[in-house]
Amino acid sequence: MNAKKLSLVCFSGDFDKAVAVFTLASGAAAVGWEVNIFFTFWGLNVIRKNKGRAFTGQSFMARAFNFLMGGRKHLPLSRFNFAGISPVLMTGMMKGHNVATLEELIDSAKALGVKLYACEMAMNILEIKKEELDDDVVDIIGVPTFLEQSQDAQTLFI
Amino acid sequence: MNAKKLSLVCFSGDFDKAVAVFTLASGAAAVGWEVNIFFTFWGLNVIRKNKGRAFTGQSFMARAFNFLMGGRKHLPLSRFNFAGISPVLMTGMMKGHNVATLEELIDSAKALGVKLYACEMAMNILEIKKEELDDDVVDIIGVPTFLEQSQDAQTLFI
Amino acid sequence: MNAKKLSLVCFSGDFDKAVAVFTLASGAAAVGWEVNIFFTFWGLNVIRKNKGRAFTGQSFMARAFNFLMGGRKHLPLSRFNFAGISPVLMTGMMKGHNVATLEELIDSAKALGVKLYACEMAMNILEIKKEELDDDVVDIIGVPTFLEQSQDAQTLFI
Repeated sequence: MNAKKLSLVCFSGDFDKAVAVFTLASGAAAVGWEVNIFFTFWGLNVIRKNKGRAFTGQSFMARAFNFLMGGRKHLPLSRFNFAGISPVLMTGMMKGHNVATLEELIDSAKALGVKLYACEMAMNILEIKKEELDDDVVDIIGVPTFLEQSQDAQTLFI
Repeated sequence: MNAKKLSLVCFSGDFDKAVAVFTLASGAAAVGWEVNIFFTFWGLNVIRKNKGRAFTGQSFMARAFNFLMGGRKHLPLSRFNFAGISPVLMTGMMKGHNVATLEELIDSAKALGVKLYACEMAMNILEIKKEELDDDVVDIIGVPTFLEQSQDAQTLFI
Repeated sequence: MNAKKLSLVCFSGDFDKAVAVFTLASGAAAVGWEVNIFFTFWGLNVIRKNKGRAFTGQSFMARAFNFLMGGRKHLPLSRFNFAGISPVLMTGMMKGHNVATLEELIDSAKALGVKLYACEMAMNILEIKKEELDDDVVDIIGVPTFLEQSQDAQTLFI
């Protein structure tokens, strides 16, 4: 790989994996890499404007899924979630060690020029509209555009 | 990366991740990329000929695992599986939005020349025989062959 | 990718994914590739010296997490874990088919020159000390160092 370019697919909606995505993204951007993140499926919950739960979408199923998934405040830990208490405690542990929290990591990634993209197909399936996503999302793209972006990048599926 | 080549390790046997694998694969193949998928461990369930459940293998453990895992009809969602109901509803949501279903994505990937490989070691551990796999599986290979194939490819572990 | 170099992020603490990490690592090293593994978050449990459970760390939360996670003996299967019985049975299945067990894969990877690194930030959050890790861990590094190492490598997030 010649280019200093990092391309991340954020498929997961787990709290710990979202922390990994934004730690890698802001770490890479801080040392001058170009970073793109492609949010798809459960990962879309990480970049919803509404950080809480809401019944959005048209169909019954989409409404149920969207409510269950919730927004950034409801990302579960991939293990030992304990009904959502652990991500709160984990944030406490991160603060206690002067490690940036997820919110801080996201802000820092944005400030360092990390670009956020959302997956068109997943938005269709889950009935999520553009206006429901973080205003800093650059564009809604499909797989071919993502592949083109990633061709000379280090690419990870998280 | 110079070559337009995508190499996917399909380790997961989750429905949503299998959708991701075949969306990426058929999307890449549609714009002229060479695509190889290496199915290993739980991922082998995605390419079993028998899409239902069966007690296959010799040892008690292998028989139990193979029954529990089931075939393509029994892939669970990685979240909110609800005893297998959700993948069925998710397929309904995909149809409702004119998004290709998993079966359609697999057919389309094959038609576009995506090559499927199965992991030799995982087949040994789980006691899965070549004849139990989809007839379109090109070959059963080990890690060195997979690495050689992937050397100039964009490679993702899913 | 020109270099025969493999860089693995071992984020998961699942038994089956640890097997995947060390199968890829030792397979690649056996055919002459340079291999680095970066252990972070749950993955740190794979390289703890103490393979059992212990209350380590200072804060209440870290002590609870460290006890729950346990060491290498307690890695769960990502599916069908059945309270920890399945990894034991899976090891039996691996032995029964003359496939290397996880312990053997780790020893073989080390013997073949695979280099192990631990993630500084994750160690801070989980309050894991250097002396608690396997003596063969080469160094404790951060994201920028990892990215530099991986720039010309095939990189997978597992």
